[in-house]
Order: sequence, then structure tokens, then C-alpha cells
Amino acid sequence: MPRVLVLNPNSNPAVTEGIDSALDGLRHDLGVTLDVAGLTGTPFGIESQRDVDAVAGPIARHVHDHEGAYDAFVIACFSDPGLHGAREATRKPVLGIASSGLLTALALGEAVGVVSIGSGSLPRHHRLYRAMGVAPRIRADLPVGASVGDLAGGSDGPDGMQNAMEGVGRRLVAEHGCDVLVLGCAGMTRYRAPLEAALGVPVVDPAQAATGMAITAAVLDLSS
Amino acid sequence: MPRVLVLNPNSNPAVTEGIDSALDGLRHDLGVTLDVAGLTGTPFGIESQRDVDAVAGPIARHVHDHEGAYDAFVIACFSDPGLHGAREATRKPVLGIASSGLLTALALGEAVGVVSIGSGSLPRHHRLYRAMGVAPRIRADLPVGASVGDLAGGSDGPDGMQNAMEGVGRRLVAEHGCDVLVLGCAGMTRYRAPLEAALGVPVVDPAQAATGMAITAAVLDLSS
Amino acid sequence: MPRVLVLNPNSNPAVTEGIDSALDGLRHDLGVTLDVAGLTGTPFGIESQRDVDAVAGPIARHVHDHEGAYDAFVIACFSDPGLHGAREATRKPVLGIASSGLLTALALGEAVGVVSIGSGSLPRHHRLYRAMGVAPRIRADLPVGASVGDLAGGSDGPDGMQNAMEGVGRRLVAEHGCDVLVLGCAGMTRYRAPLEAALGVPVVDPAQAATGMAITAAVLDLSS
Amino acid sequence: MPRVLVLNPNSNPAVTEGIDSALDGLRHDLGVTLDVAGLTGTPFGIESQRDVDAVAGPIARHVHDHEGAYDAFVIACFSDPGLHGAREATRKPVLGIASSGLLTALALGEAVGVVSIGSGSLPRHHRLYRAMGVAPRIRADLPVGASVGDLAGGSDGPDGMQNAMEGVGRRLVAEHGCDVLVLGCAGMTRYRAPLEAALGVPVVDPAQAATGMAITAAVLDLSS
Amino acid sequence: MPRVLVLNPNSNPAVTEGIDSALDGLRHDLGVTLDVAGLTGTPFGIESQRDVDAVAGPIARHVHDHEGAYDAFVIACFSDPGLHGAREATRKPVLGIASSGLLTALALGEAVGVVSIGSGSLPRHHRLYRAMGVAPRIRADLPVGASVGDLAGGSDGPDGMQNAMEGVGRRLVAEHGCDVLVLGCAGMTRYRAPLEAALGVPVVDPAQAATGMAITAAVLDLSS
Amino acid sequence: MPRVLVLNPNSNPAVTEGIDSALDGLRHDLGVTLDVAGLTGTPFGIESQRDVDAVAGPIARHVHDHEGAYDAFVIACFSDPGLHGAREATRKPVLGIASSGLLTALALGEAVGVVSIGSGSLPRHHRLYRAMGVAPRIRADLPVGASVGDLAGGSDGPDGMQNAMEGVGRRLVAEHGCDVLVLGCAGMTRYRAPLEAALGVPVVDPAQAATGMAITAAVLDLSS
Repeated sequence: MPRVLVLNPNSNPAVTEGIDSALDGLRHDLGVTLDVAGLTGTPFGIESQRDVDAVAGPIARHVHDHEGAYDAFVIACFSDPGLHGAREATRKPVLGIASSGLLTALALGEAVGVVSIGSGSLPRHHRLYRAMGVAPRIRADLPVGASVGDLAGGSDGPDGMQNAMEGVGRRLVAEHGCDVLVLGCAGMTRYRAPLEAALGVPVVDPAQAATGMAITAAVLDLSS
Repeated sequence: MPRVLVLNPNSNPAVTEGIDSALDGLRHDLGVTLDVAGLTGTPFGIESQRDVDAVAGPIARHVHDHEGAYDAFVIACFSDPGLHGAREATRKPVLGIASSGLLTALALGEAVGVVSIGSGSLPRHHRLYRAMGVAPRIRADLPVGASVGDLAGGSDGPDGMQNAMEGVGRRLVAEHGCDVLVLGCAGMTRYRAPLEAALGVPVVDPAQAATGMAITAAVLDLSS
Repeated sequence: MPRVLVLNPNSNPAVTEGIDSALDGLRHDLGVTLDVAGLTGTPFGIESQRDVDAVAGPIARHVHDHEGAYDAFVIACFSDPGLHGAREATRKPVLGIASSGLLTALALGEAVGVVSIGSGSLPRHHRLYRAMGVAPRIRADLPVGASVGDLAGGSDGPDGMQNAMEGVGRRLVAEHGCDVLVLGCAGMTRYRAPLEAALGVPVVDPAQAATGMAITAAVLDLSS
Repeated sequence: MPRVLVLNPNSNPAVTEGIDSALDGLRHDLGVTLDVAGLTGTPFGIESQRDVDAVAGPIARHVHDHEGAYDAFVIACFSDPGLHGAREATRKPVLGIASSGLLTALALGEAVGVVSIGSGSLPRHHRLYRAMGVAPRIRADLPVGASVGDLAGGSDGPDGMQNAMEGVGRRLVAEHGCDVLVLGCAGMTRYRAPLEAALGVPVVDPAQAATGMAITAAVLDLSS
Repeated sequence: MPRVLVLNPNSNPAVTEGIDSALDGLRHDLGVTLDVAGLTGTPFGIESQRDVDAVAGPIARHVHDHEGAYDAFVIACFSDPGLHGAREATRKPVLGIASSGLLTALALGEAVGVVSIGSGSLPRHHRLYRAMGVAPRIRADLPVGASVGDLAGGSDGPDGMQNAMEGVGRRLVAEHGCDVLVLGCAGMTRYRAPLEAALGVPVVDPAQAATGMAITAAVLDLSS
Repeated sequence: MPRVLVLNPNSNPAVTEGIDSALDGLRHDLGVTLDVAGLTGTPFGIESQRDVDAVAGPIARHVHDHEGAYDAFVIACFSDPGLHGAREATRKPVLGIASSGLLTALALGEAVGVVSIGSGSLPRHHRLYRAMGVAPRIRADLPVGASVGDLAGGSDGPDGMQNAMEGVGRRLVAEHGCDVLVLGCAGMTRYRAPLEAALGVPVVDPAQAATGMAITAAVLDLSS
């Protein structure tokens, strides 16, 4: 039975719990062990490159320290922090949710749109799209204009966030021609199904997609 | 419990059986229903564009006719024949093994190499790599110089094929710098593990990879 | 004297006649034999990937069966259905109108715009632009929002279609900076000259362009 | 009856005559007027960027001065000197042989190889391939290691040149996988047919290809 | 002490003087010799491809004639006219302001925007962006809709130009997400600082950037 | 007078001293303050992604702590560690030597070759080339097959290293057609001039190039 550790690199337990819930379907249907862990001493939200850099080392160490207990690892932050360093720390497969979410979207649709939290992450995202070599397939990446904290319900509550995400999603579909969307954050799972229902195109939650890829890699014994 | 149909578009029952065996690990570890079906009246091996074109219609019809019985579909031929037509025939996710195998490799390594059967398929492969928008990540695609029939053991038996594949694999790693390989045919599964052992880099069987992606898509209810 | 067969893969005789008329200039000025044939038993309009797949086999067979009578072949549907299969069926050059129309536009201008019929064809077009390796030169592909049937004059007659095409053309030029347009369908020839006159940029009819390329290839004895 | 002027920008009458002969097939089969003119006061061979720059102005002036007498113009030097300047000098279509030869090759094959004269032209060629946006389709550009003068028969005569070109052509096909070649100079026409016979892949003479495109543009009244 | 010649290829002494003033900071802070020269007999403004072609020869000759007196050369026109020809005329480094300005912007930001004078230069710019191989990093190039003459103060004076440039700059930042701008002309220096202050993103004057690169190349004895 | 801090992120004082010597020419000719500092507590050599990740935080803090004392910063490690994080820590320009060295090479030549230390850094380099958007211009990156320690003279002394680098350089020029090379490490400066003399093409030391860019940015007051 494959065992996968999904690592939330920030220190916000609500995000860790949200990711844990997001994986219930995979856990139940496939009968696999999916543990979700957070880190301590890391930023509460990962919203800058310095935050990304700060968690790379702790991620690699955590992966290294738990290598024996798991068959695959997922780094659950849309900047894929520490991904390549963690791969040096284990022969087991390590998947990042940004790259895995985007590759999953590429397997499903033609023109990918990304719903990001804030505009500050866009340069980081575009560097990743180019580094992955898939930039021509990412049609647009639009920010909701929120903070990580807002995801749990900001001043206008979850409904406000839901509306904001739908607005961005509609622009991705109608103005940019996207036919598959990726949520650009580990903490947006609760909005996935309503967004998909509202827009009529598949919406990929990157933590779910990466965990699916990690399960497959674990079963097939594919290292990264 | 997700049910996935893996469709071998050629009419060679040995290939269908080989694919079926290739999925035993996923079937066992994840407890999912993985049915493998072949088609009748299609070419015995799919080795030309005309073969690819000939199976597109039957694939779409088969998917349409079995839509109710499955949660996801895999088209098990490295040319991804009929992929986009089959997607028009169902709201369920349909995955092609070429695109899924390549995307899985992109999630694991930096420089992808493809081990193809014969040189005749290379122009078709390169069109696909460009159409997918991932060509800059595919470092090289080298042919073994065999036919589909040889895969089951040609005049020099399986050992000859094993040696030929290792030779190509070594060139991909040593001369082209590839750090992850993809088998460029649905019927090469038996050579996957020995090749990986000999070369020391992950070797992706595309039918296994696509089935993993299909299982994930089925569980997450993502359409294509 | 070069003889070229232009093959309309759908079974709509009005489209076949329209293509035939479109070639009068080339026929008259160059004194070449330009035959236009339709197929029977194929879709009345080619508007889906399944339609594209359905005509690939009949096209290759038709080319094969008439190989002795012609020096070059043109497949007159903007999805270039069966192009690579037909090339396996003859040593004579076979040109597709989408690729030939786009390459002709690239020879004339800097930023190519495509006027498509409906949005359903856009993913198919974009796969082709990438597969051709010329996507960075295609600035935009905008749909008129019509069906193939509308081209002959829908509920608002040819004038309505003319207005719709001019509207799309103006956006391609003014908003996207296109300086050469390609008509994204074999059945739009009648709108070419008025569109060019209204917009002041060259407008390429893809069937005309492909036939010109086929004549050249036939005279120069270049195979595809 | 379309009239096309093919302009050899160098001042070597032997090259002008060679181009003139190269067009006999098009002239005869299509009944069109194809005049070939050389320039005076320009370099005897165009082998450097300074040579390219030196002929741009004279080309544009020549096109401007003869605008009334022709329906289309071809600039017969593989660096496409003065192409965009000449287009400012006339509303008639102006085609360059490099871009037209490459686009014609893209219409016929999958992987384009270029047979160039000397290595000094390669950086210029690569800038052009990128500027055209088609670089991913140009698999290799290999120099014969000769000078323009050698083309007419150097110290080892035409046979030596023929052998050198076949050697380069074989490498393009066997080592680089090219399935269509383009001659990277206006003065190589005599080697086209033997090279094609020896290699078994289509070999495009760029002056012939560009003239074919110019005839088409002239008949269809397409400006550039 | 490095000596750099900055060559304004047009014959407008006001532009030459403006470039000279633009280099005061580099001249003062680095104690280097920065001479600025104009040409005579060339166009008053370089606004067409024919203008670009017309100055290529004089530029190469000027560089050649002054090779002994300078350690590096800068061609101060945003079309980089004669750049590669001038490099053939000297072993000393020759920098073009368009390529140098864009490369400098790439070193500072993520998404580059270009403020151009008029729309007529855009096709020329895009050819350059592609030829440089950096087109995916140039997010947008928007014209102010002025002529070179307007830069010194047109009918609505410098204030009108300042407003027009700010308007274009704001669109590049707000609509296209640019985080670094490049002035697309040698004569816009006076607007650099106010534009940067108004927009809050770095604004690169290409003549200044190229001169900085030329100084570095001269000191490090790097040829081009 | 611009003051630039060049930061060696490893803790090897010999590398810091080598960088310091490498900047003598710029320091002397331009009269600028160029301080070179090493870090303590960081890896002795930066040879893995984990090393790269480990120094990102210390680099950003060092830049932040010394912001007032300098006008620009250079991160002197060819992986550009912490570049984007350091930019968040200051409004002053921060340049990485990999990106600056490559961009400088792009300003000088057509086909860039990189001389790297070991093969382990190649995947990291290729991710960077793609992220920068300039991968099509980097013709090849070949490893010398040494360790950072070898650069100061391994078992076969500096002569052995010199020979190894020349061997790699010759392959880049002769087999890959490179006409400008970049040293892929901050500690190779001593080999630059001999390599350039032996190969006859410009060889860019990335620390020198980045410092030149930083000086320019400081004088022109351009932030990153």
C-alpha cells in the first residue's frame, strides 16, 4: 500500500487541515495512506520569494528525515519551494504541486488558465512556467487580488472570495479562451467544485493532482 | 471505486495482454478496476499515420459505447490516435499514453529521452511534441530500429531486443544528457524495469503512467 | 502541363463548387489543370475532430486511387485532415490548405491573424499552429461565431456574414496588430476580396494559396 | 499573364544566368514571364553582412524603378537582403528566396536541413531562422566549406562540389534526421536534382520556390 | 581609460546632442571618454526599413575609420542598424542600443515593455525580438503614436509627449503586467526619469544601457 | 562614485580572493568602489541545489544589512542563488552572475557556449536558461568534469585544469558552432584570458560581466 506524505511548508494549521480534507477522495477511493504535515518555524503564508527560499531547507530536511516512512512526497505550495533540493535528499519521488497541477491540466485541456491569489506571485509563476518549458500552453495567469489569509474568508467572507474567484475564472474562459483551469495555491480546494460547476470547464486543484501523481509514481516505483 | 478502460487500438491480442499485465501493480495496490480491451478489424500494429487515422473512429465509438461502464479511458498507443475525437464522445476523462507518459516524465526529471521502435514514427512523434508545447524538454528521441512484432522477441529473441533498447538508452543518457526516459510504445513494458536497472535513471512506461493519470482524474472527477 | 487535384473532403457540393470558382484565376492565368472533387459519404461540414478523423481514410484512398492522373494534391479543409496519411499514399506532393495558407501568409507579412468560423475549431487550430512550429507568428485566431452552413448565407444572408467577418478582421488588425490575414475555412473565398478592400491588408484564401504551392511543387517535381 | 522579376543582387553574370536557367521549368510549364536581372556596382558575391547591407538600397531602388513592369519581385540571395526595404518601395509582392525556400520546405517535410556554402553565413542564417519564428523546424544548417566562386567549379571542378554537397546532405539526413533539404544559396541549382536523386529526400532550390510563391501571389493579387 | 564612440546614425544634430547629454552621468561617474558623433548624408530620422538599410554602410565605414581611436562602439538607433556589418569592420566590441537595452531590462525585471514612437516600427521590432531569441520575455511593445520629430516637442510641446508616454507606460504596467520598461528610441532620454517616477518601475534608456555595456566590454577587452 | 558589493555566497576565502582579483581591471579603469565579501557558515563550495537553497537566506540578509553602504549588489555564484529574494530585500539593483554573464554574451555573439565544472550542475543550468527565456540562444553547456576544489589546481595542477577547459572550449566552438563562451562558475577567472587566446572567440567571465552591469545600473540609478 503506497504511503504518501504531503508537506505543507507553511506553519498555518488551517491550510494543513484544508489540504488534508482535499485528499479525502483519493484516500477513500484508492485505499492509500496520505499523511499531511505542516512545518513549524516557517512563514505563516508563503507569499514572497524570501518565504519560498526560507522553507526550501526545512522541506529537504523533513523529506530526508521521513524518507523511510513514505513511498513518495508532495510539496504543497504553488511555488514548488525546495523541490529540486528535496529530490537530492531522497531517491523516492518528490512532486511539487505547481508543476504537477500544470502538467495534469495539460493532459486534460488545450489552453490552461491559472487563478492566482495576488499579483505579487505572478513573476515567480512565469519564471516557473518558462523553466518548465510549457509557457506557450499557459494562456493566462490572473490574480484574485487577495492574500493567503483571505482564502479562509476575508472581510467579505467565503462568499466574497467565491465571487472573486468566479470573476477571474470567467475572464480566463471568456477573454483568454482557457478550457482548463488550475488553482494557483494550496489553500483553494474548497472553491474547486463550485468554480467548475459555475464555469463548465475542469478546474484542477494542484495538491490533489500532485498527490495523484505521487501515488502513481509510488506504485510504479518511479524516482524523481 | 474508479473503473478505467484501457483501450489497445490495434488488433494484436498479445499487446493487449502485455498491457493488462503491465497494470497489475496499479490494480493491486490501488484496488481499482482496470479493464484492458483490444479492437478488432484494426491494424495488427500501428506503424504508420494511415494506421493512426484508421483507428481514430473505432476508438471514439468504443469510448462512446462504453461510457456508462467506466469513469475514465486510456488510449494505449504512443501516437495518441483519436484522442481528441474520443474526448468529443464522452464527458469522462480520456488520456493518451504518449502525452501522459511525457507529462509524467516532465514531472520527474529535467531532460526527457524517448526510446522509439523505428525511425518511421519519429516525424509523427516530433509533431506531437511540438503540438503539446513541450518540445524544448524532449532532448532526444532515438529509434531501436525494430518493428512492433520484434517487441515480443524477433529473430534474436527478447534478449536481442533488450540489448538494443539498452544501447539506445545508454546513448540517450550519455550523449544527450537525458535523466528520465519514456518508452515510445505500448508494448515495451517488459523492458522497463531491466532498462531502469541498467541505466540508473527512471524509465516511464507510458501505459502505466497514463493509467495512473486516468485513475486520478476519475477519482477527482476531472473531465478532459 | 501540371495537373492538380483539389479535394474537398466534405460532401457538400456547394463548397466544392465554391472552391472550384476560387481557382479560376490560377487556372486561367497559369493554364494548368485544376480539378476539384468532393467526397461522398463524408460529413456535410467538417466541424469537429471526429469529422476530421472520419475523412482521413477516404482522403488517403482517394489520393491513392487517383495518383496516376495528377501531379499534386490539395486537401481543402482548414484542419488539414489526413494530410500525413495521404502523403504515405503517394510520392506526389500533397498540400494541406491550413499549413499552406499560413506559410503563405508568413511569406507576406509579419503578424498573422486567422478568421475562423466558430470557437469550436480553435483548440484544433492551436494544436496545428504549435505542431507546425510557427505559433509565435500567429498573433490571433478569432471566430466569427457562425457555422459552415452560414457561409453560404445564413438567416441574415451573405451581407450579415460579410459584416461579421469584417468585424473580426478589424479586431485582428486594430487590437492584435495583424498585418496579414488567413481565412480559416475552405468556404470563405467569396469574402476574401471585400475583406482585403475593407481592411487594407492582404487576405489569404487558403485553398488558393495551397493550390499555388501545389502547382509549384508539381512543376518542380518536389515530393512531400 | 503574371510577370515576375527575379533580381540577383550580386554583380556576377554567371549567377544571374544560372538563376535564369533554373526557372525554365516554371517559365515553360506555366507560361509566365520570368525575367532575371543582375545588379551592377554590387559585390561579385554576397558573403558577408556588409555585402548584404550594401545591396539593400540598390535592391529597393531597382524594385521601385521597375514596379510598373512586373506583378511580383523575387530577391535571389539566401540572406534575403533588402527584403523589408523593398516591400516599402512597392505594393506588389516581394519574396525573398531564403524565407520562401524555408517555408516551402516546411510545407513538404518535417525536419528541414540547409546546405550552406561556408560557415561564415551560419550566424546570419540562424538570426533569420529565429526572426522568421521557424527555428524549431530547422534541424541543422551545415556548410559545404566552399566559396560562392567554387559553386561554378573550383579547383576540383563541379564534381568536387557535387561530392562535397552530397557529403553534407548525407549528414543532414543520417545524423540529423532531416527529411527535406534547402539549398542555402541562389547559385546551387545545378546540384539540386543530383542531390535529390542521391539522397532520396526532396531538395528545394530556394530561387525556384520563391518564384513559385511570387507567381501565386501575383495571380492572386496578394501584396507583401 | 576606456574610450567609447557612440554613433547616432541619423543626421539630426539635436538627437546627437540629446544622446550626449544622456551620457553625462556615466561620463562623470566613471571618468571615461564617451564621444558622441552623428553622421551626415543620412536620413534626418530613421523611421523606415529603408532608412535602416541606408545607414548600415556609413555606420560600418565610420566604425572602421575610427577603430584606432576607440575601445568600443555603440550604434545609437533602436533598430540596431548595421550592427552585424560594423562587427565585421572591427575587432573592437560594437553594441546596438536595442539589443543592449533589452538585455539590460532582462537583467532587471521579469516582464519587459517597450515604449515605441510609432506603429510603423513594430514589425521591425518584433523581428528583432525574435532574432534575439528573447521574444517570450517582451510582454508588449506599444507605440506612442508620434514621429521622431515630436520627441523634441511637437505641436503640443514636450508636455504633450510626456503625457502620451505616461499613458503608454501605464498601459504596459497595468494591462500587460510589465515590471521594467525600455524606451524604444535613442531620443527619449529626457522622458526616462519622469516616466520612472510616475510609474514606479525601472525605465531603461537604451543608449545609456548600451554605453554601459560598451564600457564594460572595453575594460574587459571583450570583442563582439 | 558608485560602490558595488560583490558577494561570494560560499565560505571559501580563496574564491573570494579570486573574484577580488578578477575585478581589478574594472576597479582601476573606472575608479569605482568594488568590495568583495564572502559569507561564513555557508557551504565551502556550492555544488548542489541544496547548497543553492542554503545560501539564499544569508544572501538576502547580507544585502539587506549592507543596503546603505552600496549602490548595487552582485551575487557571485553561477546558479544565481537567492537572486529574487535579495531583490525583495532592497530597492538597489541586484545582479546575478549567471544571468548577467549570459546576457552579456548574447550582446556579443550569436551562439553561446557554457563551460561548466561538473555535470551535476547541468539540469540546474538548463532550468535557468529556460526560466530566463533565452534557451534557444545557448547552443551547448559542457562540463569539464571537475569539482570546485579542482579550479585552484587539482591533482594535476592548474595546467591540467587549463587543458581540460581548452578541450571543452574547443568542442563548444568546433562541434557546436559557439562564437562566444561563458565561464560557468565564479572561480574560473584565471582561465579566461588563456582560453580566449587559445580559441579565438570572446570568453565572458560572469563575475566581471555582472559587476559591469551592476556599475551601469548603479550609475543610471536603475533598480531591479
